[in-house]
Amino acid sequence: MSRRLLTIKYDGSAYCGWQVQNNGKSVQSAVQEALTSIIGKLDGIVGCSRTDAGVHANMYCLHFDYDGDIPNERLVLAMNSRLPYDISAVDCSDVPNDFHARYSCKAKNYIYKIHNSHLRDAFKHKYYLQVNRRLDERKLDLAAKEFIGTYDFSAFCSSGSSVGSTIRTVTDCSVTRVGDDVIISITADGFLYNMVRIIVGTLLEVADGKIDVRDIKGIINSKDRNRAGVTAKAHGLYLNKVYYV
Amino acid sequence: MSRRLLTIKYDGSAYCGWQVQNNGKSVQSAVQEALTSIIGKLDGIVGCSRTDAGVHANMYCLHFDYDGDIPNERLVLAMNSRLPYDISAVDCSDVPNDFHARYSCKAKNYIYKIHNSHLRDAFKHKYYLQVNRRLDERKLDLAAKEFIGTYDFSAFCSSGSSVGSTIRTVTDCSVTRVGDDVIISITADGFLYNMVRIIVGTLLEVADGKIDVRDIKGIINSKDRNRAGVTAKAHGLYLNKVYYV
Repeated sequence: MSRRLLTIKYDGSAYCGWQVQNNGKSVQSAVQEALTSIIGKLDGIVGCSRTDAGVHANMYCLHFDYDGDIPNERLVLAMNSRLPYDISAVDCSDVPNDFHARYSCKAKNYIYKIHNSHLRDAFKHKYYLQVNRRLDERKLDLAAKEFIGTYDFSAFCSSGSSVGSTIRTVTDCSVTRVGDDVIISITADGFLYNMVRIIVGTLLEVADGKIDVRDIKGIINSKDRNRAGVTAKAHGLYLNKVYYV
Repeated sequence: MSRRLLTIKYDGSAYCGWQVQNNGKSVQSAVQEALTSIIGKLDGIVGCSRTDAGVHANMYCLHFDYDGDIPNERLVLAMNSRLPYDISAVDCSDVPNDFHARYSCKAKNYIYKIHNSHLRDAFKHKYYLQVNRRLDERKLDLAAKEFIGTYDFSAFCSSGSSVGSTIRTVTDCSVTRVGDDVIISITADGFLYNMVRIIVGTLLEVADGKIDVRDIKGIINSKDRNRAGVTAKAHGLYLNKVYYV
């Protein structure tokens, strides 16, 4: 029995998220079904993270155990011919048996895409948050920098999650503009439930003048969810990169 | 009564094309419905061209007559709040009463997007043609240049269309690559039915070695539809620009 690491990408628009759930189809079950049809028996697959309904992934990693001999490259091609059109396989590689898609992960990068124009765009509905009022990306970038560091991020965690420690290290948080697109990028060693979406929601309230840049550190230190911004919508969010080294 | 020119863009994935038809919803009827709900009575709208089912538009122009006084800018915003998410309004302007969205058009530019990789991409299914074999964009660009000029393009016209002259002037035809994306761009003073899709299909047969670059002029001169390539699929095609001056 040997372990393999499969990298995929997916348009999450039509899914209830990664995890198998009762309400709606999940990315996990679609991947399991395709993989089972190729390799036969499968003891489940383990993903690098849960993603919410509607969240996309430019890079998502999962591991599974397999004792057959289909080469990795052929497995990728076979997966692409069996997966639904909105999920695609990118890479497959051998990993040690103690590798774990979730626990071996060193860091993840999420990006959040905003279409910042008084006119919405027919092609961006499922992939961008539409914000009509002009965003000041330099101000937002200054606010984003306040999140960098090792903190207890309880104020940026939705209730209902059961994690041990709520301390995380954000290594990068930035806001950039390319034309009408404003991209928020956040890298951390791990994320609490809805942490990215609440940070984005908080940055949007900074843009609105409801929250001051100088208040962000205080909000973090308060550990009070009520002081942070609302949870931003899911459909502009992408798991963008997963780091194992 | 004065005439206005409305510019929109649309993701054609869910539509049977521009024109009102019995089988499926059309972009035209969606636009008419939204416009009627804003300005009341409407004597129809006239589009710059028919587009096939599944074809997208980065820019599409239409005119209508209206004797009310809603400013153009407000009309655009109102349209965006009423149109379905996959159609968006870009601009509206006053035009002379003898302006005609179709007949006043001087030229159109279409682009055709190809995702050229042995791996398909979850985000590109509805917007790109997937081509696994590596395309030689320099060879294709040389072939594309053969289409530039004034010719009888009967060989690149699907039957069933009833046009007068089959002579058109192609002012630009080029193939460029950006990473895994190969973009074919064609500009002409007008296009016969399926002309862009048949030119693209012919270029793909050049890529396959089925048609030689040196044969293209002969195919054009033959006026024989059977000698040109197959009609490429619609979902990679975009009406990209409409010129009135």
